[in-house]
Parts: sequence; C-alpha cells; structure tokens
Amino acid sequence: MAQAQYAIGAEDVRAAAKRLAGVAHRTPVVRVHALDERAGAQLFLKCENLQRVGAFKFRGAYNALSQLDAGERAKGVLAFSSGNHAQGVALAARLLGIAATIVMPNDAPASKLAATRGYGAEVVQYDRYQVNREELAHELQARTGATLIPPYDDPRIMSGQGTTALELLEEVPDLDVLLVPTGGGGLLSGCTVAATALRPGIAVYGVETEAGNDWWQSWQRGERVEIGVPKTIADGMQTTSPGRLTFPIVRALAAGIVLVSDEEVTQALRLLLERGKLLAEPSGATSLAAALYGKVDLAGKKAGIVISGGNVDMSRLATLIA
Amino acid sequence: MAQAQYAIGAEDVRAAAKRLAGVAHRTPVVRVHALDERAGAQLFLKCENLQRVGAFKFRGAYNALSQLDAGERAKGVLAFSSGNHAQGVALAARLLGIAATIVMPNDAPASKLAATRGYGAEVVQYDRYQVNREELAHELQARTGATLIPPYDDPRIMSGQGTTALELLEEVPDLDVLLVPTGGGGLLSGCTVAATALRPGIAVYGVETEAGNDWWQSWQRGERVEIGVPKTIADGMQTTSPGRLTFPIVRALAAGIVLVSDEEVTQALRLLLERGKLLAEPSGATSLAAALYGKVDLAGKKAGIVISGGNVDMSRLATLIA
Repeated sequence: MAQAQYAIGAEDVRAAAKRLAGVAHRTPVVRVHALDERAGAQLFLKCENLQRVGAFKFRGAYNALSQLDAGERAKGVLAFSSGNHAQGVALAARLLGIAATIVMPNDAPASKLAATRGYGAEVVQYDRYQVNREELAHELQARTGATLIPPYDDPRIMSGQGTTALELLEEVPDLDVLLVPTGGGGLLSGCTVAATALRPGIAVYGVETEAGNDWWQSWQRGERVEIGVPKTIADGMQTTSPGRLTFPIVRALAAGIVLVSDEEVTQALRLLLERGKLLAEPSGATSLAAALYGKVDLAGKKAGIVISGGNVDMSRLATLIA
Repeated sequence: MAQAQYAIGAEDVRAAAKRLAGVAHRTPVVRVHALDERAGAQLFLKCENLQRVGAFKFRGAYNALSQLDAGERAKGVLAFSSGNHAQGVALAARLLGIAATIVMPNDAPASKLAATRGYGAEVVQYDRYQVNREELAHELQARTGATLIPPYDDPRIMSGQGTTALELLEEVPDLDVLLVPTGGGGLLSGCTVAATALRPGIAVYGVETEAGNDWWQSWQRGERVEIGVPKTIADGMQTTSPGRLTFPIVRALAAGIVLVSDEEVTQALRLLLERGKLLAEPSGATSLAAALYGKVDLAGKKAGIVISGGNVDMSRLATLIA
C-alpha cells in the first residue's frame, strides 16, 4: 500500500463513513449558477455548514468517540476549543452517553459557551494569559482519567473529516479539483486521502488566509513551519503550524496550498449568502474565495468546494454584510 | 378521477416533473435539530431558496414556457412582476431561447431590475399610480403578440410548482403534515394536489401573514374574498385574493389555512439562518414560523416545511438580523 507510511489511508475513511452513517448528516452538494459564472467553472459546494453543529467537526469527533472502549467511555472525554471542535465533541459525547469536559478561555464568546453547554458538556474556563493550557490539560486528565480528543492531529479525527470528500466524490465522481479550507489540517488531510483514492489525478488544494499562512510556508519549505497567532477574519484558522500527522499526507498527496485575503473571504461569504442563500463562517468560505478569485486555474473544470462551516454570530454577520 | 373537476391533477404534476428534470434543481431536504427541538416535531425543510433564481417560481415558469409551440415561442412571452416570478420567467425564457418582456413598476428595487435584466429579459417600467396595468398588458400583447405568463392562476404554473411537493414526498414518503407559504396559491395548489395524491391523509396547510389574510378569510367563507393590498413583511405575499383556479383545489383537498405574525416570521428567518445556515426571504419563512409557533399541532409528527424562496437584499437582511 502506497499510503501505509501515513497516519491514515482510504480504508480508514471508509470505516469512518460506516460509523457516521445515520448519525452525521450526508450534507447536500449545492450548485449556484451565479457563482459558476464568476468562477468560469462548475462548482460543487459540499455544504458542511449544514452538518450537525454547523461544521464538519462533528464527523471527526463522533468517529473518535465511537471507538472508545467501555472503560474509556466511563471516564469521559476532554477537549480544548472555543470553536467548532468544542461543539462537535460535546454533541458526539451526548449521543454516545459519554461525559464531556470542554476547556475554553474565559474570553470565549458567550454564544459559543451557551452552544457547548446546550449539548450537555461541562465547560471549564481558564485565563489564557495566566494559565498554561498544556499543564491544565494534564491536571484535568490526571484528576479524571478522561481521554483527550485532539482537534486535528489524530487518525480518528482525520479519517472522520475525510468522509466529507468521500461523500462528495461518490456524488460527483469526475471532479478535477477539490478546494478545502485548512486550519490544523484534519479536514484537508482526510479529504486528500479520500479524494485521491477515489479519483486518482484529482488536484486537491488547501486554502488558508494570507495572515495565517503556516501551511503555505510549510509547503514551500517542505517541512512544518511555526508562525505567530495570526490575526485573520478566519477565526477557525488560528492554528500556528500544520499538524505532525496531517502535514506529511498533504505534502505527499495534495497539489498545493493557496492563499486568500480577508477581503476576498468577506466577498465570497457575501456572494454565497446573496446568490446561494447559504451562510458560511469566514473560515468556511475561504475555499469559495479561492475559486472566485482565480487562485487555482479552474477554467472549464469541475471543482469541489468544501464549505466547512457556518457558525457566525448574527451581530458579526450584520457587520460583514453591511 | 376525483380530481377531474379541478384545473390540475397529480398526472399534470408528474408531467411537469419530467419537463423540469435536469433543468430545475432537485433541491435538498435539510434537517436542523435545533429547529426540531423548538417545534417538538421532525421538520423536513424543502429548500426552494436553493432553487434556480432563488425561489420555486422557476419551476412553474419553465413548465409553462416549455409547452409553448414554435409560433408562440417566436413571438415571445410577457410577465408582470417585480418579484420572483419575473426572474423565473426571465431565466426560463433564456434557457428556451424565447424573448421575454417583464413589466415592473418603476419603483421596483434596483436589485430586482438588475437580476431580471441579468437573465436577458427586456424590462419595461411603468408608473403604477398613473398607468392601468391591465391596459398596459393588453397594449403590449396587441403590439407584440407575446404570450402572457400569469404568476399563479394557470394550470401549467400550478403543476410546475407542485413538483416541489412531489420531490419532497418521494424523498420522505411518510410525512404527516405539509406547510406551504401561499400568496396567489400556485405553490399551495400544486403541492396540495401532489402531496394528497402521493400520501392520502396528509394534512396540507397554507400559511400567510396576519395582515394578508385573504386565503384565511376565503377559507372561512368558502368563497374567494378580496382584501386591500396588505402591508406585511412578506413581500412575496401581497396578492389580494386567492386565484380563481387555485382556490377550489385548496378548499377541497387541503386541511386549512393558518396565520403568522410579521414578528414570528422575522424570528423564524433569524433562527433558520443562525441555526440552519439557510437564508429565506420573509415569505419563504412563513411555513417555518407556523411550525415554530404552534399554529398547527405537530407534536411528535413528521412535517414537511416548504422554504419557498431566499431573495432578500443584504441591506434589508442586515436590518432583520440586527
């Protein structure tokens, strides 16, 4: 097996798909002619903004939690996130009857706190300027014995996220290109494995914003680069380095990394809402921005566009579309 | 045939579905758990906001235009609308190579003018306080010989709109209830015919706003009632009377008409956007409002919710969600 050297292979994504069947939504693939015309291509929007918890993160979380054994389940799970991973783990835990503790900085938005508690998780807050996150994690794990669920650098998470591309390619088997938003690379690595297995020769690109260009820099250098916490509109992409497990897969099997500006992301989000009637969060619209602003040559091609999530506060949205 | 007395029957809707295959989108049916929880029911959202031109209107328009003969096609088509019917007719005409003239009041929003022209139609504007619309229609028809395409009271239009329910029931055959926004009744009558044919015993309700209660009044009286032009947030529902052809079908086969307030519509639109990541225009969210605010007893039931359109200006949306 060519992929045996990597953390996951296509068979892991297929196994994840079986675990997710009937639990995660098989999200729709939507066509919007007005966007096609602007891109000069046929765009197939894989709508993970319509996934449970409003983002692809539920896939990986459920795939990971459903593989815990009875002893692990009894001790609960633990995750660090103020974003979509928090909600993904919280809902997966509730569905599986597992206690979840989610650790969030105490300046996390009230809406995120409420949503995570709404799924039944216990939220522990900490001062991110005073407390070391890793130490807090170890302390909590030592006290409870809970299993830590990483946000991306974990084969179960990566395989789960890859089911996004598996579904898309099953529905549209002849895609030429696939554009995938990337933060830590869980979604990108899983989708790269699935897409290149189902459609050898497909060009998979990761998309990130110019300010948070850790993947782009790492791709050029051929090794993982660490950047400072990026100031970008794409709040789901504030990771500072590609994952240890996700990077090698992407570097070997994907076609490249492209960058979009915050302004391009805002325009893509607006157009998707105005013409496509779909709400994406900024991170989730980066892939569409890459297509609309010619970051990859799509002329006359069929391109899969993963809209990775749609969680944005209404007050912030009002500002973005004003 | 029990339905022989009515303008259309289920066979007409099936014939329309064949004409629309591969042309109209087979729009997705979306589940949103947060909305289910509020409604205390399983809601199946049939997303006509994701239809071409952003509303169900394309279905009826294409079904009507595709049945014109060569002589009629050569003379073009004519429609009066400043809303979604205009765009539906304009796009259907472009796809079929038919010249379209759309007559709009000269105070119609610039965005609607631009969208309709964008589909290649010629837009004729008139002063609605100075010029009689019927006379203008006759004059234009006399001059060009164009075929007038009515917005709802036409068997081809009604059958086309009914394909919405046909698709929904094919995908979710065991619905107990179906909630359908209604203006002139093209969508409601077509969906009622299709749904009751595929699922005898299903309770189909039309939904309109309290201010524009011409259907509700007509239902109570058992005959068509005319009201003044309603002042309502639902700008797609400013008809003043049920259609001559649409009303008898609905009165005979549907379960009733329910009313929602403008405030309930706004809340439903917000929730659909925030939790469902889907943009509806106010008219298009009336059905969801009826489900969320208990206008029909849905406890423990499976309810189809037709989200009929999503065309709303971004500036107006910013106000609605502020």
